[in-house]
Amino acid sequence: MSEIITVRGFVATDTKLKKLDSDTDTTDFRLACTERWFDREKNQWVEGQTNWFSVSAYRDLARNVVASLKKGDKVIVMGRLKIRSYTRQDSSIGTYVGLDAVTIGHDLTWATSTVLHKTYQGR
Amino acid sequence: MSEIITVRGFVATDTKLKKLDSDTDTTDFRLACTERWFDREKNQWVEGQTNWFSVSAYRDLARNVVASLKKGDKVIVMGRLKIRSYTRQDSSIGTYVGLDAVTIGHDLTWATSTVLHKTYQGR
Amino acid sequence: MSEIITVRGFVATDTKLKKLDSDTDTTDFRLACTERWFDREKNQWVEGQTNWFSVSAYRDLARNVVASLKKGDKVIVMGRLKIRSYTRQDSSIGTYVGLDAVTIGHDLTWATSTVLHKTYQGR
Amino acid sequence: MSEIITVRGFVATDTKLKKLDSDTDTTDFRLACTERWFDREKNQWVEGQTNWFSVSAYRDLARNVVASLKKGDKVIVMGRLKIRSYTRQDSSIGTYVGLDAVTIGHDLTWATSTVLHKTYQGR
Repeated sequence: MSEIITVRGFVATDTKLKKLDSDTDTTDFRLACTERWFDREKNQWVEGQTNWFSVSAYRDLARNVVASLKKGDKVIVMGRLKIRSYTRQDSSIGTYVGLDAVTIGHDLTWATSTVLHKTYQGR
Repeated sequence: MSEIITVRGFVATDTKLKKLDSDTDTTDFRLACTERWFDREKNQWVEGQTNWFSVSAYRDLARNVVASLKKGDKVIVMGRLKIRSYTRQDSSIGTYVGLDAVTIGHDLTWATSTVLHKTYQGR
Repeated sequence: MSEIITVRGFVATDTKLKKLDSDTDTTDFRLACTERWFDREKNQWVEGQTNWFSVSAYRDLARNVVASLKKGDKVIVMGRLKIRSYTRQDSSIGTYVGLDAVTIGHDLTWATSTVLHKTYQGR
Repeated sequence: MSEIITVRGFVATDTKLKKLDSDTDTTDFRLACTERWFDREKNQWVEGQTNWFSVSAYRDLARNVVASLKKGDKVIVMGRLKIRSYTRQDSSIGTYVGLDAVTIGHDLTWATSTVLHKTYQGR
């Protein structure tokens, strides 16, 4: 089973449109998701640790992401979780934690946003 | 346990800011979520049935929703599912299916959007 | 889009295997999901309101559900949310809130359980 | 925000009860979640890549997990996703992908199970 999860965080890198192949646009960015909770004793919000994800988008979503998202924007990301091991050049083992985005949106808890341009015809 | 779920759909009603009490802004709208899948035999997208939700937002999110969303906008909604029975005036039983929104965003699969105004200071 | 959600609750009715058609076994039961949280001031768990779902299972899962679940068992249910309006005989409108189960399991927060019989060969 | 996600997989290691401190029981195991889909052209199920998680459970859930789960059991796990970098002894960077379990259950798609012992009094 593949896991589709939804996370909230902020866009930590610039986005740029690339070609996966001649037909397929793609983009990727780093997403930082920091746990926050209200500490009743201190009467303030406190932050916990951060989950980092490598978000990838494809086709229409990739083009709209590049046209819409700026570094620092707070977003909601729904995507398929991919955890992969790889071997670095120094032969140590790294782990890639990726989200293949199903969809992404500006998080309206923190800001107002407006639709610029509808890219899909029909419903 | 309360269920926090994430759904995608379109805003089917106009939004308007109301007062829950003197300190708390709120708004609500109807959200239509229609199942879609790609039919390989017909080689086209087909639509299934629609789940309807009554979405409620509060405080900052309510104000940003009213400033950001228009009827017809496609959105992602993360919220707490509330299913409640009630008795109508004619004494028949109805069921309210609500989502108390945790957050909402424009769905970038279908359109580009831009942040208008950050309403939260700090991160 | 169809919403696959995961909820926790208890089985509120007996289960019985039925035939959807000559090839397809099915079963259904009512699931009660009650919000619970720890009240720090009272220093005790309190219960909120209850979401009720009509859970349906098919094929292998249906057979295993009937062989495994008893009324009162606490379970985890992952399923596709279906909200449908229907007209009652008295012509009032009712709402069906269903979960087409993807999978179900005994909730190990509340009890121990053991596998009785593996019904699937291979992985 | 912290991400509570639900995944399905199989228990890949033995479980053993440990003490986090004098009051708190804990256990952990490795969970393998493999994407599967039905390939219509080949007319068979095919498997994709595997997401590995380190699942931790605490208190009642830890005790019930150790009493209930065997290596190889197929389970549903709902938990809080934790992605953490750490430095290995050889100074290379590793990544821990953990799930702090909210709850776990035997997956009834693959087997029948029965409740052995209710460990929680009241509802």
